[in-house]
Amino acid sequence: MLWMWIKILIFKMSFEDILNTTINSIDPIDKNFIKKAKNRLDNLTKPKGSLGRLEELAAQICGIKRTLNLEIKNKVIFTLAADHGVAEEGVSAYPQEVTKQMVYNFVRGKAGINVIARHVNAKVVVVDIGVKEEILNNNVVNKKVNFGTKNFTKGRAMTKEEAIKSIVYGIEIVEDEMKKETIDIVGTGDMGIGNTTPSSAIVAAITGVKVEKVTGRGTGINDEIFNKKINVIKKGLNLNKPNSDDAIDVLSKVGGFEIGGIAGIILACAKNKIPVVIDGFISGAGALIAYKLNPLTKDYMIASHQSVEQGHKILLDYIGLKPLLNLNLRLGEGTGAALGINLVECAVKILNEMATFEEGHVSREK
Amino acid sequence: MLWMWIKILIFKMSFEDILNTTINSIDPIDKNFIKKAKNRLDNLTKPKGSLGRLEELAAQICGIKRTLNLEIKNKVIFTLAADHGVAEEGVSAYPQEVTKQMVYNFVRGKAGINVIARHVNAKVVVVDIGVKEEILNNNVVNKKVNFGTKNFTKGRAMTKEEAIKSIVYGIEIVEDEMKKETIDIVGTGDMGIGNTTPSSAIVAAITGVKVEKVTGRGTGINDEIFNKKINVIKKGLNLNKPNSDDAIDVLSKVGGFEIGGIAGIILACAKNKIPVVIDGFISGAGALIAYKLNPLTKDYMIASHQSVEQGHKILLDYIGLKPLLNLNLRLGEGTGAALGINLVECAVKILNEMATFEEGHVSREK
Repeated sequence: MLWMWIKILIFKMSFEDILNTTINSIDPIDKNFIKKAKNRLDNLTKPKGSLGRLEELAAQICGIKRTLNLEIKNKVIFTLAADHGVAEEGVSAYPQEVTKQMVYNFVRGKAGINVIARHVNAKVVVVDIGVKEEILNNNVVNKKVNFGTKNFTKGRAMTKEEAIKSIVYGIEIVEDEMKKETIDIVGTGDMGIGNTTPSSAIVAAITGVKVEKVTGRGTGINDEIFNKKINVIKKGLNLNKPNSDDAIDVLSKVGGFEIGGIAGIILACAKNKIPVVIDGFISGAGALIAYKLNPLTKDYMIASHQSVEQGHKILLDYIGLKPLLNLNLRLGEGTGAALGINLVECAVKILNEMATFEEGHVSREK
Repeated sequence: MLWMWIKILIFKMSFEDILNTTINSIDPIDKNFIKKAKNRLDNLTKPKGSLGRLEELAAQICGIKRTLNLEIKNKVIFTLAADHGVAEEGVSAYPQEVTKQMVYNFVRGKAGINVIARHVNAKVVVVDIGVKEEILNNNVVNKKVNFGTKNFTKGRAMTKEEAIKSIVYGIEIVEDEMKKETIDIVGTGDMGIGNTTPSSAIVAAITGVKVEKVTGRGTGINDEIFNKKINVIKKGLNLNKPNSDDAIDVLSKVGGFEIGGIAGIILACAKNKIPVVIDGFISGAGALIAYKLNPLTKDYMIASHQSVEQGHKILLDYIGLKPLLNLNLRLGEGTGAALGINLVECAVKILNEMATFEEGHVSREK
């Protein structure tokens, strides 16, 4: 981050410059290492391909990291919290203060993500990227773009500058953490009351699929609120007219700071050749932004699970990602990503630890 | 096992008596504890039901163990190896000696199941329940019913006595292990070249679904062998005419020793109130036998994954189980079960470690 500020202050590098530099420094993953990994996997004591998606994952990680000597040790889940002006339209079952309350719950280690991250031995980095209230806690990374977005039914959710800043903050979060220790894999996570609403708006804006088809029941709203939510999203899209080909325009008009931040995390991972496991619907909206900014990011992503949110499948199909788990999750926070990280770690161990047919003295196919 | 032999020798308790005693000592799971678990889950700091299948799992384990004070610590996967006379019909892509070779690979800790079991911190108990050749290794539990089954296209695969013995051996394996230490959860696994053939035959015999619909490509056979496999199964069923209402009859006519053993493991788990995670297609065939012997076993079972084998979905639907994972696995050995155990452990931690709304100072739904 220091270097980034030096660039900003000394070289007058703007947030936009940083974003563009990051976008332009993403290499494709190395297909040659995927092939090498597949060869090795085919020599292990099992029928070819019989570990299915786990084998695909191991090969993908080799392609990302450009080596067959993998280790998944340091696992980091970034849980980004932010508030949403549109929550005042009454689109969520929960009051807005829950965003802040949950941030403190994360810090105490008592939320869903903490439990699952401990289970898979991953670190949780909690980030305030735009909570409406002040968060005062040394264990929360302060990257506040603003005190919540604006209500997008009355104008754009954020300025273009804020949209760029939220993405750059996401990039910084990863690169700051990399200075502390090597990161072997990243998971994305979110917390923000009302944030399925901007996520649905983003998915509708970018994919062109009808609002009704990309909108779900979030934390569990009734029919009345559900219909209101659809109308709120339609109103926001009609008023702001986001340009579907311009991800920054979409993000700034109907997005959220944590969604921009997640897009930034994904860009930073792709730039730094780190596999990034995408959580559910909100993280998926962030993934959609990252994918639009540079489609090469796709091959660095792993979709952890298929959310209950109906827009999630649509966005995953749009990017071309197949989720690993289908556990009817809809919590967010990075919970699905944590479980996905665990499967990636397992996949890498298969590549590393299984005997080949020769080593195992096992006969091959007839 | 000693007690069982005392019963057999002193009280003249036959294998059939032991089987019937086990079948008749299975209680239904406790719906009251499922309700209590759901209440607790609904008070944790997350929208109700937002951890989906993980919440269902936690509640199921409470129902099985009749407590909310759960701990999943000692995890045991039983990998049962046996050979199949029908393999001489050329229904597998691999030579029969691979069964024995893989047993030694398991003991060396270098097979797929070893890697995944280590990843989830589970113990693997390798059992010879009917390998064609002699297995001489102190780390392999010797429960050999016979040196492989007979070719079921020429007569029954095993005698009725052997079928019962294979199930009782499965029961003993669990109860012997329980004498060493408490078992918190069990996973089933199999190894046996050709064993998708008897599994398909069992599924066809019990569910009544056409052979073509319950037969898959096992370890990866071509069209020619696939068509042969279907004909072999049809021939075996036509010749032996298993009685679909009599699981022992089905097992003895077209089954395998490891399939009977897996049925026994499931019965023992249900009797002893231990959750049992079912691996893929072969374990599923064992589950079908256990379910036919006592349908109460169903609620003690957790289906780990949806195998690539097309008969697997049919048997899971028949029992009424929903798989947790869909990773295109088709290795067996207990690999899917190990991953399932990991999810159950995670589910239990959620119940144990998450803050309630009160503890977390988080506002409830509006």
